[in-house]
Amino acid sequence: MTRQTLQIGLAGLGTVGTGVYETLCRNHDLLEARVQMAYNVRKIAVRDLSRPREVEVAPELLTEDWQELVNDPEIDIIIELIGGTKVAYELVKAALKAGKPVVTGNKALLAEYGSELFRISLEKGVPLYFEASCGGGIPIIQSLQNSLICNNVESITGIINGTSNYILSSMEKGGVSYADALAAAQAKGYAEADPTLDINGWDAAHKALILAMLAYGTPLAPDKISVYGIERVTSTDFAFAERLGYTIKLLVVIKHHKEGDRLELRVQPSFVPQSHLLSKVDGVFNAIAVKGDIVGETVFYGRGAGKNPTASAVIGDVVLAMRECRHPEYHTGFLPYTKKMAVMPQEETETPYYVRFLVQDRPGVIAAIASELAKLDIGISATSSTPHDMVDGMPRNNLVFILHSCPWGRLRKALKALRKHEYIERHPAVFRIETFTNN
Amino acid sequence: MTRQTLQIGLAGLGTVGTGVYETLCRNHDLLEARVQMAYNVRKIAVRDLSRPREVEVAPELLTEDWQELVNDPEIDIIIELIGGTKVAYELVKAALKAGKPVVTGNKALLAEYGSELFRISLEKGVPLYFEASCGGGIPIIQSLQNSLICNNVESITGIINGTSNYILSSMEKGGVSYADALAAAQAKGYAEADPTLDINGWDAAHKALILAMLAYGTPLAPDKISVYGIERVTSTDFAFAERLGYTIKLLVVIKHHKEGDRLELRVQPSFVPQSHLLSKVDGVFNAIAVKGDIVGETVFYGRGAGKNPTASAVIGDVVLAMRECRHPEYHTGFLPYTKKMAVMPQEETETPYYVRFLVQDRPGVIAAIASELAKLDIGISATSSTPHDMVDGMPRNNLVFILHSCPWGRLRKALKALRKHEYIERHPAVFRIETFTNN
Repeated sequence: MTRQTLQIGLAGLGTVGTGVYETLCRNHDLLEARVQMAYNVRKIAVRDLSRPREVEVAPELLTEDWQELVNDPEIDIIIELIGGTKVAYELVKAALKAGKPVVTGNKALLAEYGSELFRISLEKGVPLYFEASCGGGIPIIQSLQNSLICNNVESITGIINGTSNYILSSMEKGGVSYADALAAAQAKGYAEADPTLDINGWDAAHKALILAMLAYGTPLAPDKISVYGIERVTSTDFAFAERLGYTIKLLVVIKHHKEGDRLELRVQPSFVPQSHLLSKVDGVFNAIAVKGDIVGETVFYGRGAGKNPTASAVIGDVVLAMRECRHPEYHTGFLPYTKKMAVMPQEETETPYYVRFLVQDRPGVIAAIASELAKLDIGISATSSTPHDMVDGMPRNNLVFILHSCPWGRLRKALKALRKHEYIERHPAVFRIETFTNN
Repeated sequence: MTRQTLQIGLAGLGTVGTGVYETLCRNHDLLEARVQMAYNVRKIAVRDLSRPREVEVAPELLTEDWQELVNDPEIDIIIELIGGTKVAYELVKAALKAGKPVVTGNKALLAEYGSELFRISLEKGVPLYFEASCGGGIPIIQSLQNSLICNNVESITGIINGTSNYILSSMEKGGVSYADALAAAQAKGYAEADPTLDINGWDAAHKALILAMLAYGTPLAPDKISVYGIERVTSTDFAFAERLGYTIKLLVVIKHHKEGDRLELRVQPSFVPQSHLLSKVDGVFNAIAVKGDIVGETVFYGRGAGKNPTASAVIGDVVLAMRECRHPEYHTGFLPYTKKMAVMPQEETETPYYVRFLVQDRPGVIAAIASELAKLDIGISATSSTPHDMVDGMPRNNLVFILHSCPWGRLRKALKALRKHEYIERHPAVFRIETFTNN
């Protein structure tokens, strides 16, 4: 050990906080030997001192006042794992202003206040680490900040919500309905009692914003991203997807468009070709595909959530903080925010599409749809259908069209025009088809 | 820019060296902005000044004397990309001794002299970076050194030779023979004119040694690893593999056994379950699965070779070197070598097996094989066969046994005993079956 003991302040002793504390204790000797520095957890801020704990902690370490961590001159590094965006925001801001590097896994906080907090971090020259905010134990943030640093990032495409992926995997493998898959996920503890943010896409969107801010060094706010959840994915769509050589995944898509220097930024259930690695990411696992102009395509895979995987990511950051807290000028993770990058309107973003219409089984239906699409110059690359079925006492067909790439705005116009045809029922199911080129 | 310009010395201007130089020039502004440091390539050592270059280089940068790089007091960092193990060894040793951090991508050098070079690096406190030595553009080394640092590594299982993976993928997808697949790989430039080290497993073995030294901090030499190449993989085995739910990949397997604190260390074509991500890694791509006690399973995927992907890895290291060369004490990548870990004899390593016998089509054959296996307490979990075929004018059957896990030494004994049965022809085809538990 060449330096004095680094003192750590931990805020939050929930699931991840407990995992971090346990691992800092359990693998203490291993870590000190590898980092060649000594460390000590000096103080732990919790909401309620009287609450029973999963882990044994010396009572004198605990406090209910997070300000003690910020104000303690002995504390070198603060780990924020309290969750939420109110107290966490106050805490992170105060810590950075007090010159203490912060390690956080709080995606909601960074999605909402990241632009401000990253700016303070840069201005003060005090690093803010956030590996655990995206992809659990997957080292995606450090890889983008360090290993892949010479790359212009062309795109990031990822499965970064374990709960929704678990549900979609169950629907795919087990042929069960969305409702049944969700109930099973809740029974197994893979979905919260209130799984709203997981299934409506917003948890993934928060992470997407963080990845985009990091990859492009631009401030972004949640209103910039287009978000659809998995609530409307049906077994019928999975059956068609399989027949056509795809599966359905809740994808985060971040793409840089050189023309106009704009970002495409969206979260939605998408068709993924069975030949692509992302289609094989099942259950609660996450995977993030990063395409760089120098490295080509890379994929990072691992557990996207959970006590220990997230603790692994937090501690990876703590080690960086230990190394850098005496020389923060060597930190490469400062987001420079040299420019404000525009986000493309969704109307302009182009992909191929899968559109499934539920129609009355009568002559002229295909012709009507094909003709509306042709009017807007939208090409059809394939069609598929199922024998008619009885829906509400009437014979109905599922008619699937695979469409060539076109701007979403144009397809939306065509779909609107088709609403006037009374033998085409309900809103069609529309999914983007993601294409991956292996450069 | 808060510091003076960092001066880089580059040794070697072959494929990767050219990629590094081009990228350092092309993405110069991006890199300086991200790292917040200025850099300059001050000198480039080449073997032959008169050789025509793919890239334009100011003549005054070039020298044929690598010692100029080591002796130039202005040079802060040296990149070694000359290949081979003779001059490269002299260069890296001299640079470390002169206090200059070294970035290398030379796997043969590290496999052979790594133990000594890492020791010098540690003793001198001068970092030796080697991301590019394993898995091309995949950030596996930095991830092990930093992000996953709190983990006891339980196992590393990887596809880390692109040439052999390209050949095996072609055999799998195209049903072609080994010889045809190799010829196609050579025609496409994915295999060298002399592909010996790629197909006999030794290129992968060099990388495995590096990964093992890094993950366990123990010195290792090439004689410690058991290596088999892909030369004997046949279309027949691929057909059986597919039928049984597997594919065949040249795998590197590094496993820590707590009992006895020993390492399992081997390279061979293995059966990989179709359900595991590694089975989906096709063509020249590489992937490395790392299992840690805290993070669980992670997989890193990307281009394992080539000018630009390797350059991306080299520059990721150069950036670390730029940050750390004024404060090398903050480098976490020093291999401590606190202990010498023993390697398990291959005889003791256990997996399930696939064994294919070519037998005469007559009664009693299956009974004979099953009985020899039973004598050594080796369980059979499945059998499979093809209708008899004419081989050398005689009817022959392919008889496949899937065996329960047992030590290789025991199976080898059984196979030896079976040689006395004259109706069992030739040496059987034996492959290990890798099992992956998703903890």
